[in-house]
Amino acid sequence: MSAPLRGPDLPAMPPAFHELAERVNNWGRWGADDELGTLNLITDEVVRAAAATVRTGRRVPLALPLRHDGVQAGLIPGRVNPLHTMVQINQRLFGPGTVATSDDAVTMGLQAATHWDALPHVSHSGLLYNGRPADSVTAHEGARFSGIEKIPHVVSRGVLLDVARAHGLDRLPGDHAVTPEDLALAAEFGGVTVRAGDVVLIRTGQVRLYLAGDKNAYAMPSPGLSCRTPEWFHARDVAAVANDTLTFEIFPPEIENLWLPVHALHLVEMGMLQGQNWNLEELSTACGEERRHSFLLVAMPEPFTGATGTPVAPVAVF
Amino acid sequence: MSAPLRGPDLPAMPPAFHELAERVNNWGRWGADDELGTLNLITDEVVRAAAATVRTGRRVPLALPLRHDGVQAGLIPGRVNPLHTMVQINQRLFGPGTVATSDDAVTMGLQAATHWDALPHVSHSGLLYNGRPADSVTAHEGARFSGIEKIPHVVSRGVLLDVARAHGLDRLPGDHAVTPEDLALAAEFGGVTVRAGDVVLIRTGQVRLYLAGDKNAYAMPSPGLSCRTPEWFHARDVAAVANDTLTFEIFPPEIENLWLPVHALHLVEMGMLQGQNWNLEELSTACGEERRHSFLLVAMPEPFTGATGTPVAPVAVF
Amino acid sequence: MSAPLRGPDLPAMPPAFHELAERVNNWGRWGADDELGTLNLITDEVVRAAAATVRTGRRVPLALPLRHDGVQAGLIPGRVNPLHTMVQINQRLFGPGTVATSDDAVTMGLQAATHWDALPHVSHSGLLYNGRPADSVTAHEGARFSGIEKIPHVVSRGVLLDVARAHGLDRLPGDHAVTPEDLALAAEFGGVTVRAGDVVLIRTGQVRLYLAGDKNAYAMPSPGLSCRTPEWFHARDVAAVANDTLTFEIFPPEIENLWLPVHALHLVEMGMLQGQNWNLEELSTACGEERRHSFLLVAMPEPFTGATGTPVAPVAVF
Amino acid sequence: MSAPLRGPDLPAMPPAFHELAERVNNWGRWGADDELGTLNLITDEVVRAAAATVRTGRRVPLALPLRHDGVQAGLIPGRVNPLHTMVQINQRLFGPGTVATSDDAVTMGLQAATHWDALPHVSHSGLLYNGRPADSVTAHEGARFSGIEKIPHVVSRGVLLDVARAHGLDRLPGDHAVTPEDLALAAEFGGVTVRAGDVVLIRTGQVRLYLAGDKNAYAMPSPGLSCRTPEWFHARDVAAVANDTLTFEIFPPEIENLWLPVHALHLVEMGMLQGQNWNLEELSTACGEERRHSFLLVAMPEPFTGATGTPVAPVAVF
Repeated sequence: MSAPLRGPDLPAMPPAFHELAERVNNWGRWGADDELGTLNLITDEVVRAAAATVRTGRRVPLALPLRHDGVQAGLIPGRVNPLHTMVQINQRLFGPGTVATSDDAVTMGLQAATHWDALPHVSHSGLLYNGRPADSVTAHEGARFSGIEKIPHVVSRGVLLDVARAHGLDRLPGDHAVTPEDLALAAEFGGVTVRAGDVVLIRTGQVRLYLAGDKNAYAMPSPGLSCRTPEWFHARDVAAVANDTLTFEIFPPEIENLWLPVHALHLVEMGMLQGQNWNLEELSTACGEERRHSFLLVAMPEPFTGATGTPVAPVAVF
Repeated sequence: MSAPLRGPDLPAMPPAFHELAERVNNWGRWGADDELGTLNLITDEVVRAAAATVRTGRRVPLALPLRHDGVQAGLIPGRVNPLHTMVQINQRLFGPGTVATSDDAVTMGLQAATHWDALPHVSHSGLLYNGRPADSVTAHEGARFSGIEKIPHVVSRGVLLDVARAHGLDRLPGDHAVTPEDLALAAEFGGVTVRAGDVVLIRTGQVRLYLAGDKNAYAMPSPGLSCRTPEWFHARDVAAVANDTLTFEIFPPEIENLWLPVHALHLVEMGMLQGQNWNLEELSTACGEERRHSFLLVAMPEPFTGATGTPVAPVAVF
Repeated sequence: MSAPLRGPDLPAMPPAFHELAERVNNWGRWGADDELGTLNLITDEVVRAAAATVRTGRRVPLALPLRHDGVQAGLIPGRVNPLHTMVQINQRLFGPGTVATSDDAVTMGLQAATHWDALPHVSHSGLLYNGRPADSVTAHEGARFSGIEKIPHVVSRGVLLDVARAHGLDRLPGDHAVTPEDLALAAEFGGVTVRAGDVVLIRTGQVRLYLAGDKNAYAMPSPGLSCRTPEWFHARDVAAVANDTLTFEIFPPEIENLWLPVHALHLVEMGMLQGQNWNLEELSTACGEERRHSFLLVAMPEPFTGATGTPVAPVAVF
Repeated sequence: MSAPLRGPDLPAMPPAFHELAERVNNWGRWGADDELGTLNLITDEVVRAAAATVRTGRRVPLALPLRHDGVQAGLIPGRVNPLHTMVQINQRLFGPGTVATSDDAVTMGLQAATHWDALPHVSHSGLLYNGRPADSVTAHEGARFSGIEKIPHVVSRGVLLDVARAHGLDRLPGDHAVTPEDLALAAEFGGVTVRAGDVVLIRTGQVRLYLAGDKNAYAMPSPGLSCRTPEWFHARDVAAVANDTLTFEIFPPEIENLWLPVHALHLVEMGMLQGQNWNLEELSTACGEERRHSFLLVAMPEPFTGATGTPVAPVAVF
């Protein structure tokens, strides 16, 4: 594909960003109408091979509890922790003598807890993945293109790159930008080779701060992906990436005034789902015990129509 | 276990119910402290065998879209269809020159769409599963026992009992109570034997009414499970049951003034998760094409703390 | 002020609209920075005179109950009736021996019930009141200009123009466009002269359909204001107008393909608050009994920051 | 009325509380079926006299803005600051060529901002105002008795007791329990005599902490009413009381392990509405400038059916 179109009248991204973008851009790779991006890389064959890795039947859930005292500390306007309310409690809706029912309702930010970012969660230069206009996201419809309901399934081989453990740490320091070299080290540590269609989970250990009760420390400073990593994922045709931080990428950012470059590279340029606030602690232990860092991973989006993100309850099966 | 305790001062369930209850009751079977019920039947071995059934890698999602025009027609107070709103649209939160982000929020009933009922969704005679008091469900905490966040994972073999198709129908009539005989017929039709730990999906075809745009017709009258079926599931040690209706059981009910007896038998007496509003249409087609009615099923609850239900995005893998 | 600026690239309003708009436009009348519009007409003197009309102390509330079974029938996406939930019920938050508290939460559309439309509720030709750009309303901030929180108070003389009663009817038929002639007739019927700064309440009786349980009939067809009435209000320097319908103006509209012209004239051109779903039934009776159709009216907006509307609980004091 | 009934099986309130309760109890005073409590004291004559106090027409609003960065700091579970979202932004719902509309939705705790507590907001000893059972508040219905929708109007004379200013302070210290002596001092300072049916506003200046940006300092420690004040209000037949704090009463409490005694005395024993988080700063200035501390006060509850509280946008008119 030729150089991607850029919207008018918007501040330009810096040259450093464009160099990275050109090397990872997937626009048009799966057709001009594609809304799935790198999830196209999860073929039936990939799924078959992923299921074939199951040996013990051990299951590890990766979602944090959805509760009012969740990971959000108020930094991002509108990204509210779940407010769970009971709308019925042991109510005999049909009169006396019958069984009683309890019902719940919730209000929450779709990106508040363990979640997937959908591709239109981020735009840059006025554009979304595959060159769609950013203003196709509206209050009325949400995202017209690549809304999370368009993602039919995320079932693939999961690979844990346990960067913290590979460095002999429980948790990376807050200013640690995870580099391609870190990813290679963690792959070697786990004895695993990243393949096309894999969902890669990157453990920094940062979520331990939240689990220990300090949601402000968890928020930032935070270790996270360097803007050099998208190219690493691109070279290996990774289908999706998730980690155990609030910000996903190193925060505050590496390059002054270039905010969220990894988001822009993954979601806009590559069309790759990314996940945040995944709890990889039990998984790290399990990988150690099972002596392997790959597994069947199922991480189904809730199909909110037009949504730019979704809570997800992923599970790894060994 | 001896006869289960019953709370005082509440209208008695009719004798017909008690006869059924005694035959399926699981209280104490997995200990007095158990909060999981029949999910205990999904052992590592069951999961291993389920994964081993994967042959083609074909994936079929089973959730209806989560949208404002969902299946709820206003009959159940407080069970609201999802209200999806954008809280940010292409917002440059960090100033000009950066990428822009879009965020969403939602308000919804946890039982509004494709969902699991958690065990405390229903009480009868003042009691929940395993003899817990019904008043342990509060506005403050939600469900103290067996809240949906206690369910770590639902990964098992799934079996489709396509009752409609076994009868040569696209959709069962609204007054069709699905009986044990129907289940046996559908198992034979699918060439499948239900085993311990299976998650059984029962297709009535009723959801076609919703998919065709008529949510009132979908609501009721509705085919659904007869109160004779819990014993059939109990005899086979089924782990969970879901179907493609709003009411789950035949509605209006078989026995006058005995409302929701199947809910009470499954959730309270057996401690068995049940699912509603699952879209089994594509699955029915896939089972026909794949020439088998069993598959790997993953249907992870979203871990809402204290919740009596959860939206779920199940996936079948062939 | 010279001819108002119009945004580019948007379909033009028809000439018939522009003729009306030119006659009522208030842009610049209270300065280029004004965000209040005709509420500027409520001076201290107006308020003083309004208070002086109080003679008996009789109070009449004008809001419909805020409940889940409210006036919205699902026609307007996202305009949801109130979902009221209890988040605490008799909870001893501080331990045993203390008093217990109950708390509530609500989710609702701000325009769902008895409400004021704020000026930025409507734009036309890409512009809001006083020539502000329509795109100053964002998901992030809501309305930057003339948000409802900018309205400090609505306290003035209220005048009931009981058009239905003036015609000898309980309720106007659904196709009755309320004309300037109707308003004059009702003023004569009520023995009242509309003055600068008045808040005019126009009774059609349409809300009786909702009160009788038929929210669909209430919605439409609906009597309501003709697009000839804004000029009548403009000539009299009315501060705000409210009525007892869902749509405010005649609906379906008088002029084919010209939707909501009265909204556009009031909110955008004149900068005049307008209210909908006000229950004027008890007020009609009270005016008859008190033998006057003017009173002190207090109708305070809830100051939602950036909101384009607000629920309101107005009260008339005789 | 004889000694009020007390519910069984609940920890007794301490004797100190009962002594206070007996002196202020209003159960049965307005009949066994009464749900309004001291609002019965606002007669037509009181309203007439209140309106007659209006001299200048100056209006002072008393509500804090309703916004996500509101006064709640997370201390009270479920009492969430308003989450305001846009559900439509300049949407041409009826096709091109028409006006465009913007709509909002909100989720909020009804006691989160400037609010009235309804009588059933608090119970003690298993009972509500007028001896109603506390368990008449349910998730299904909310409050069956004295829900806020039962309050038809709050229009009366308002009196500002500016305790801080009477002490020569901008703000009372956090450990200052406002006593009857303080109230008398402030009445003298304001040159006002509290009368039957008055709505009394008590200024501590505490809200200045929130207005200065420190919501944690605002929350507590907080000056507030002493448990000796209800008797003072009772003796004067005050209709309702509001102040400018989060906790209303001195917090932490005066008597160890006796939490919220003033709430229990006002709401349960007296049946008196109370208001919190009222912004009395501008009012304090206005009273000084107008040289009087009484005015017409309108503070209409939003009629949420079954609610135990409501946001309110009060206005004082001089």
